[in-house]
Amino acid sequence: MLADPELTAWVRDAVGRVAADADALATLPRAADVHLAPPVRPRTVLCLGYNYRGHVPDGQDPTADDPEFPDVFVKTPNTLSGPSDAVVVPAVADDVDYEGEVAVVIGRRAHAVAVEDAMDHVAGFTLFDDVSDRAWQRRQSQWAMGKCFDGFGQLGPAVVTADEVADFHDLTVEVVRDGAVTVSQSTSTMVFRLPWLVSYLSHVVTLEPGDVISTGTPQKLPEALDAHRPLAAGDAVTIRVAGLGELTTRFVAPGAASPDGDDAPHAHATTTTEGVHA
Amino acid sequence: MLADPELTAWVRDAVGRVAADADALATLPRAADVHLAPPVRPRTVLCLGYNYRGHVPDGQDPTADDPEFPDVFVKTPNTLSGPSDAVVVPAVADDVDYEGEVAVVIGRRAHAVAVEDAMDHVAGFTLFDDVSDRAWQRRQSQWAMGKCFDGFGQLGPAVVTADEVADFHDLTVEVVRDGAVTVSQSTSTMVFRLPWLVSYLSHVVTLEPGDVISTGTPQKLPEALDAHRPLAAGDAVTIRVAGLGELTTRFVAPGAASPDGDDAPHAHATTTTEGVHA
Repeated sequence: MLADPELTAWVRDAVGRVAADADALATLPRAADVHLAPPVRPRTVLCLGYNYRGHVPDGQDPTADDPEFPDVFVKTPNTLSGPSDAVVVPAVADDVDYEGEVAVVIGRRAHAVAVEDAMDHVAGFTLFDDVSDRAWQRRQSQWAMGKCFDGFGQLGPAVVTADEVADFHDLTVEVVRDGAVTVSQSTSTMVFRLPWLVSYLSHVVTLEPGDVISTGTPQKLPEALDAHRPLAAGDAVTIRVAGLGELTTRFVAPGAASPDGDDAPHAHATTTTEGVHA
Repeated sequence: MLADPELTAWVRDAVGRVAADADALATLPRAADVHLAPPVRPRTVLCLGYNYRGHVPDGQDPTADDPEFPDVFVKTPNTLSGPSDAVVVPAVADDVDYEGEVAVVIGRRAHAVAVEDAMDHVAGFTLFDDVSDRAWQRRQSQWAMGKCFDGFGQLGPAVVTADEVADFHDLTVEVVRDGAVTVSQSTSTMVFRLPWLVSYLSHVVTLEPGDVISTGTPQKLPEALDAHRPLAAGDAVTIRVAGLGELTTRFVAPGAASPDGDDAPHAHATTTTEGVHA
């Protein structure tokens, strides 16, 4: 029991401050309630078709089928979605597929840079789900219609700076669907390696800070290929790479993405603490 | 001779104002000195391959070879250049070609709009030179590398509002190179007509105000095909459509585009009266 009135006042005051701090803590958003926007807003997203070598029997040359040049295509800005965004399966699409990829974020403008200088222009790495509708993709020679539905390019969860990654070409890309690992392939099996890719692309497109290059698609495991069915509302796919985190794509029906009926990820969404956003 | 001092003062004042106006006029930039930026800054530029029917002999069905769906590809933002910009023939490119097209500018957000409502989302029309390097375009299945060099999408000279064009499908697109008409074809020969195109594309990409759809390539005349040689520094190509104006693409060598050695069109160029910009 405290008799000293001054000490009593001090303790009362201190307890009051602790209580106020506790109230403040209670109002902090829980992680699950925070809506995460894409970690960068690229002006341009360039993607590669293929770029991982398939498995070949012992004694065969794994590079025998390497293409001479990478097959490059563009994801339009409407495709960009963030880690918290659900991806709408469009009403007109019924052959939706995922591709779990490692994406590179440009940190410094790159125009016609040499291979040996290319990594100076890379800020870091993140994950990218290159979502496609295969039927729309196959309708014509160019893939844009299959690749560019609203929200079909999920980016995140965060940009890990390049200095945090000891060897970009020693990462294992895993994809999990319905509890099963459907992809597990090392970036060591890429056909076109990162410094060469950045250099090559920079000879065509002047790359700006924040621009994203997604480095191609590790191949589905044979049993995953056999079991494949198009993605539908209710499905979820998780991409994970040690050191880069996890990115989960939840697929929803049109109109289910947000209570206001706006299916598309917000064009200018920013990180927000509004609980019920997506 | 004026004797009235009040009138004399009035005349003196009026003459002074005229002289001041004349000084102001003298400092107005001449048209040739004004650097015209692209008339809009699209977030997304979607282009069509093909889309104009070739000539067929009498009695044959001109629609016999029509594709089922348009072949759509993307021009990245770095390609955007304006009417006053020269286009750099990249050091790594030696098979550069032009395509004179009519472009549509979106005026109101369009998501999955019906064909009959599509034109409500169109603000107007302008011209577009879809520049390509054919060798880079053919390197792989996707055309992005051939289509997306810096400055390879010249847009202008101005957006003519839709109400000024009586019939979009009754325009003649002409291209002139070296004094010879190399293209002369009516928009009436388009395979996919504009309202259908806007509707179709809007089912994939939510089109935003300012976005551009270039509606495909009228075919080179047979004699122009025979005489074709890749564009080189010093060449110029003019697209002209009655009512939409003229757009001239001047091709220059790397480093020749601007005195500061910045070959790329300025990423955020705005209309400016600086005389020596390009």
